[in-house]
Amino acid sequence: MAKGLPKRSEDYSQWYNELVKKADLAEHSSVRGCMVIKPYGFSIWEKMQAALDKMFKDTGHSNAYFPLFVPKNLFEAEEKNAEGFAKECAVVTHYRLKNDPDNKGKLIVDPEAKLEEELVVRPTSEAVIWSTYKNWIQSYRDLPLLINQWANVVRWEMRTRLFLRTAEFLWQEGHTAHSTKGEAIDETKQMLEVYATFAEEFMAMPVLKGVKTESERFAGAEDTYCIEALMQDGKALQAGTSHFLGQNFAKAFDVKFAGKDGKEEYVWGTSWGVSTRLMGALIMAHSDDEGLVLPPKLAPIQVVIVPIFKGEEQLAQVSEVAEKLKKELQALNISVKYDNRDTSSPGWKFAEYELKGVPVRVAIGPRDLENGTLEIARRDTKEKAIFKVEDAVAHINQLMTDIQENIYKRAIDFRADNTTEVETYDEFKKVLDSKGGFVLAHWDGTAETEDKIKEETKATIRCITLDFKEEAGTCMYSGKPSKGKVVFARAY
Amino acid sequence: MAKGLPKRSEDYSQWYNELVKKADLAEHSSVRGCMVIKPYGFSIWEKMQAALDKMFKDTGHSNAYFPLFVPKNLFEAEEKNAEGFAKECAVVTHYRLKNDPDNKGKLIVDPEAKLEEELVVRPTSEAVIWSTYKNWIQSYRDLPLLINQWANVVRWEMRTRLFLRTAEFLWQEGHTAHSTKGEAIDETKQMLEVYATFAEEFMAMPVLKGVKTESERFAGAEDTYCIEALMQDGKALQAGTSHFLGQNFAKAFDVKFAGKDGKEEYVWGTSWGVSTRLMGALIMAHSDDEGLVLPPKLAPIQVVIVPIFKGEEQLAQVSEVAEKLKKELQALNISVKYDNRDTSSPGWKFAEYELKGVPVRVAIGPRDLENGTLEIARRDTKEKAIFKVEDAVAHINQLMTDIQENIYKRAIDFRADNTTEVETYDEFKKVLDSKGGFVLAHWDGTAETEDKIKEETKATIRCITLDFKEEAGTCMYSGKPSKGKVVFARAY
Repeated sequence: MAKGLPKRSEDYSQWYNELVKKADLAEHSSVRGCMVIKPYGFSIWEKMQAALDKMFKDTGHSNAYFPLFVPKNLFEAEEKNAEGFAKECAVVTHYRLKNDPDNKGKLIVDPEAKLEEELVVRPTSEAVIWSTYKNWIQSYRDLPLLINQWANVVRWEMRTRLFLRTAEFLWQEGHTAHSTKGEAIDETKQMLEVYATFAEEFMAMPVLKGVKTESERFAGAEDTYCIEALMQDGKALQAGTSHFLGQNFAKAFDVKFAGKDGKEEYVWGTSWGVSTRLMGALIMAHSDDEGLVLPPKLAPIQVVIVPIFKGEEQLAQVSEVAEKLKKELQALNISVKYDNRDTSSPGWKFAEYELKGVPVRVAIGPRDLENGTLEIARRDTKEKAIFKVEDAVAHINQLMTDIQENIYKRAIDFRADNTTEVETYDEFKKVLDSKGGFVLAHWDGTAETEDKIKEETKATIRCITLDFKEEAGTCMYSGKPSKGKVVFARAY
Repeated sequence: MAKGLPKRSEDYSQWYNELVKKADLAEHSSVRGCMVIKPYGFSIWEKMQAALDKMFKDTGHSNAYFPLFVPKNLFEAEEKNAEGFAKECAVVTHYRLKNDPDNKGKLIVDPEAKLEEELVVRPTSEAVIWSTYKNWIQSYRDLPLLINQWANVVRWEMRTRLFLRTAEFLWQEGHTAHSTKGEAIDETKQMLEVYATFAEEFMAMPVLKGVKTESERFAGAEDTYCIEALMQDGKALQAGTSHFLGQNFAKAFDVKFAGKDGKEEYVWGTSWGVSTRLMGALIMAHSDDEGLVLPPKLAPIQVVIVPIFKGEEQLAQVSEVAEKLKKELQALNISVKYDNRDTSSPGWKFAEYELKGVPVRVAIGPRDLENGTLEIARRDTKEKAIFKVEDAVAHINQLMTDIQENIYKRAIDFRADNTTEVETYDEFKKVLDSKGGFVLAHWDGTAETEDKIKEETKATIRCITLDFKEEAGTCMYSGKPSKGKVVFARAY
């Protein structure tokens, strides 16, 4: 109960909210629906960014930057996309404030500085980017065009939750253009694989890979691929999406290329993104009642050393051992903090670093000095043991791998325990209400059935997995024929 | 004249505009006043970011993220700051679009979704950050608070130029809080030094360090420190600013801390920033009539290898040498591109990489294969020479240092040649109109004189340099007493 975190079993939602704040990850701002990402939270996001950015570049993408604002007429051009986002758009209508003549020291919007055409704050950048691609693409030699952007976007939300749903969030959005349909589909799938690899290898979070149904598809896409993770409360979380856009945006913005034979054709497009929502997923996938549990690969501090001492002399002796260990670990690229502050007790520090999810804690006290030992505790299992000082570096280095693997395995096991195949709608509802998780069930393939199930149970089809098994059956809801089981869950 | 770039001597301004576009750095977007930073330009900015970010972290700062929007009432709180930016604020007034009932497929701003309080798109983040700091700072233990943010900001501009002046731009803004005035001033000066070091060591661009006069000060600051660079057309460019905010924002947002003695006091603040404007400075400081000249430390491609060949067999032979050289250079952390495309000629490629400022070009042809040689050309001096293949790596590695130093030295010499001390106002005007550059002159210390000089000559006081020499004299304009010479220039 570090600093009075609620238990997950008692109030998962409150546990999450408190954890995000108490571990110094983020907080609500004075701006409705917008969050402040605090330094500790932001340093985790920076690690995510660095890993993803490298993966994007290794697959041939370059970063660029496009405008924050989208003029309304551009925004409208791809109608489905515009319609999908219209209800959550922040709109800039004026470009100047002026002194309020009736209220000294106050400002008002200057009515004379009204824009002729309103500007939408980007909820996503397809429109502004495809209107630019029109000028960049003339011939097959200009393709493929493989671009990514790290940016902030705004989607107005009435009910917000830190990281999971905020009016402004940070993300990356890839936007690519290709000369053939096949190449664009390959790109869409490749980026899904990149996201899945990132989730599993860096976040230690297993994900299902699949395709969305038509009703859950990105507005303006032909197909939306996704990765879906399972949180500890049995709810699913969509962690990343990769869209095959067909020629929809190419047609809306008239982006054509001349092939080798000189014939003009519309370009094929993709877009794909992950956001600061991944922070929410990371937190909920692994953390416990004492606080965050971070995978070593994303932990800003991988090892913390806490000295136990009375008086300056003992501190000096402990510090000698600690500083040496710190240097040796840093030489292995392990990030280490030696917390020698005398303003708080070792016990307070233990709780603090547990709360912040530091994977390994080392404690060194006076008895250790006598024995040439130290105590190493791992955050994931809370095991602790005494080691010889000379064995510490090798053991801690091994723990970096072990903890990463262990929390991944734990999440895999959790998901296996919380994935249920059902045959009937009654079974379906019972599973949802008792344990939740992923529920595999036959569905007749219609949006009507999907909607009704959602209305009655709040569960949605998370995806039709890429390894979807063809298996004739009958829809649990309508009794009509089904081609195989799809994955349902209640979701964030 | 690669791809028809205008000559600097004929039309410097047009040369700049064309160069930015032709070297694929940036272009105007379909959004008024906003730019698209293209992949090649963005990769230079990424190198700048990486170097600066490391320097910020090495001096103890952490990154965080604060909202894009500032509610009007927060924005107003620090009156001088608000007044300084009010005339260039983009304002969000609505949060929803809806279908236009009179125009199928079009959208209009939904009048029912009007915000109760308008949101200003941040022109700078002091207001939103200090309103947050109020909750983060209670005691001296919470200080200093050393935070940086990488973000986009919007300042409405009527006349824009790529990188130099755009409605939206990318920047970093540091915002720190301290318990004493002295510590805050030290921080302000430290960050000025960081900027100067970055400009000189990475951009190879010498800068003057100084303090702004009151009329050029940041709105809301007690003192604005700056670095000022000189462009090849004799105009100055403010490349970075570091502000000592005194207690202005602390008072506006009621940010107090309890000292060790329990007494409450207002916090002392600083803020400091550089932006994508640095891209403009980099371009104008070094480039020539053939295109960009990039310092090796910021060049996305440091070495390009161009094969000269007829037919596949020759290409294969050249490629063997080229690929080996590429690997050896990469092992030294030198970024290399081997451009073996057969769709364009060697001559076209030479011009292209000159345009893009690649520091070193290697050419390998059939005669080289016979002789075991290759040709190495440096972009800065355009010297080229034949080397033995086995000497190439060492020579190119040395060139990375030599070119970096040479273009810095060239810029230093240029600045020396274009810095003039004058005694009379006539002399002053004559220098400005003939050669421009930095002009040192006596000034009486009043804003009136400063304004009149600006009105009559368009020259402003760039700064009072940190190494300002006290020297009694008379103001060149008013004849009143002066304490020493200050630096004037026409500026971007």
